[in-house]
Amino acid sequence: MKLEGWGEQGLIEHLKAQFIAPAPLVGIGDDCAVIPQGGAAAVVQLVTCDAMVEGIHFCQQSIAPFDLGYKALAVNVSDIVAMGGKPLYAFLNLALPKEVRVEWVKECLSGLKFCCQRSGVVLLGGDTVGALRDICISITLLGEAQAKHVKYRHTAQDGDVICVNGFLGDSAAGLRAVQQQISHTAEVKSLISAHFRPPLLCKEGLFLARSKALHAMMDLSDGLDSDLKRLLKAGGCGAAIELTSLPISPALASVSEKYSWSPIQLALSGGEDYCLLMTIAPSSVEEVCYSYQRHFGQPLYAIGKITAAPSQLCYYDQGRLASPQLTTFNHFQ
Amino acid sequence: MKLEGWGEQGLIEHLKAQFIAPAPLVGIGDDCAVIPQGGAAAVVQLVTCDAMVEGIHFCQQSIAPFDLGYKALAVNVSDIVAMGGKPLYAFLNLALPKEVRVEWVKECLSGLKFCCQRSGVVLLGGDTVGALRDICISITLLGEAQAKHVKYRHTAQDGDVICVNGFLGDSAAGLRAVQQQISHTAEVKSLISAHFRPPLLCKEGLFLARSKALHAMMDLSDGLDSDLKRLLKAGGCGAAIELTSLPISPALASVSEKYSWSPIQLALSGGEDYCLLMTIAPSSVEEVCYSYQRHFGQPLYAIGKITAAPSQLCYYDQGRLASPQLTTFNHFQ
Repeated sequence: MKLEGWGEQGLIEHLKAQFIAPAPLVGIGDDCAVIPQGGAAAVVQLVTCDAMVEGIHFCQQSIAPFDLGYKALAVNVSDIVAMGGKPLYAFLNLALPKEVRVEWVKECLSGLKFCCQRSGVVLLGGDTVGALRDICISITLLGEAQAKHVKYRHTAQDGDVICVNGFLGDSAAGLRAVQQQISHTAEVKSLISAHFRPPLLCKEGLFLARSKALHAMMDLSDGLDSDLKRLLKAGGCGAAIELTSLPISPALASVSEKYSWSPIQLALSGGEDYCLLMTIAPSSVEEVCYSYQRHFGQPLYAIGKITAAPSQLCYYDQGRLASPQLTTFNHFQ
Repeated sequence: MKLEGWGEQGLIEHLKAQFIAPAPLVGIGDDCAVIPQGGAAAVVQLVTCDAMVEGIHFCQQSIAPFDLGYKALAVNVSDIVAMGGKPLYAFLNLALPKEVRVEWVKECLSGLKFCCQRSGVVLLGGDTVGALRDICISITLLGEAQAKHVKYRHTAQDGDVICVNGFLGDSAAGLRAVQQQISHTAEVKSLISAHFRPPLLCKEGLFLARSKALHAMMDLSDGLDSDLKRLLKAGGCGAAIELTSLPISPALASVSEKYSWSPIQLALSGGEDYCLLMTIAPSSVEEVCYSYQRHFGQPLYAIGKITAAPSQLCYYDQGRLASPQLTTFNHFQ
């Protein structure tokens, strides 16, 4: 059997079964691995890796090298933040064909450096190697968190309110705008920017992680539909999502109308939003949302509820059961 | 300018200049990054990354997937060991084209797991992504060491005796045997094994690191000539190497004679030996070698001396200045 038949999930399940982390270590299956540190401070180390491969995650023609370097780190920062951690040290693996121009490499590293500066990360090492044909940039990021503040995917509770802290679908719409070479109005530009410059939510993540009422958290990388299903599977629970509550930016609404795109489809399955998905105890959700708004001048968007039905994700449109169209992405297809 | 003009060294120098690690962190430039840990124990964390790219570091046709998985971790273990550390936690980045067979992936992961078990490493996470054409396997490995036992490249002292703890050139000869499809006698098999299964010298490294008389240490990955030059540059010193003292295995000597290969050339510049290169205070070298031999039943091989002349590497053949032929490897050429 070829990999395209097995799929990414088959490979991950195999990895999980083969490489079991002995407690108290937390291994494969969440945004980061968790390594308890010695000492009374009860600090844990968080570690994550994310790779971007030419032809799969990006094309040299359509992403500026500066943005690629920036994004390669930003998507890793998002994983550390989603566990309630502070990103600290990055390690870069860069595989480059010899035909790549030096200026391209320098720009890519400038983007990476800019993202380091903005997220308080120090690049401490890595490996630079040749590649036959395709560029591959992968980053391993170390961070740390108070043990008591670490947030996981598997800890959602029945009745929790599901929230996100940013617009959904902008990034996917930005990618589509680039692919379809749509003229760059201010609105289109904001969508493209969401795609090439994922947000760095370090302060927001630390703030949210301190709340005991916030039960589960993860970042949105593959789209709400895929990622929420992972959270539900990990927690043995279900969810009901109200489609009219999904936060659609004015830019996405307007551009979607012009080009007959479905903003709901982009919001559910476009991917690469890199904002935070969280579940909050219903008795505290008002307080958490209020204090978040007060601190950051941005709302948390309540989009649904956790239910008891294992792995059952139901969508509603103004309270009526709905079956929105989705697009899916599989690395090996 | 294209990357092939800049070269790997140009890229690394650029990275070092762009990403400066604030003290007490140690960043780019040694086998590992060094991150001091909190607490009174004076423990440091060591971090290293190494990538293997299809078409550059290996060909699917000539390496068994089990060996590839094994080697991908072993070369990282070598970096941790060379700094005096104990390898602990691995993170795997695997970029795979969809045409790869599931059996191939499972075999590769079995080899990785076997190397984990043999080196006491726990695989805690990573990222599995698609690739357009070429397989890329990169590992980030975390380890730890007593701060006082960490060994660096830049700390060699004038007059130190230069030693290695394994045969040189076997791995490169093994690769050549595979490439030239030489018949697999027992001797050829031992060379091939040296290429596909780099040694795991965890106990040896920890033992050597405890010696105060051992001033500088690094692992041999690109060949004695290239790696020793790095050690000399880092330490602002020179070296005199006696070619007749290079440890050539009986297998390499015999196979080289049969096929008219130069064992000295393979030993100096073949690369991928993954044993340890170290410099030891002359007053203690006898004692260190004796106790190493007693513990491990294997000798340390004294091959030359550190000199005061910055970056000057001189070879001697029975005491007379010599200019041995070298082969070099540049990732981007």
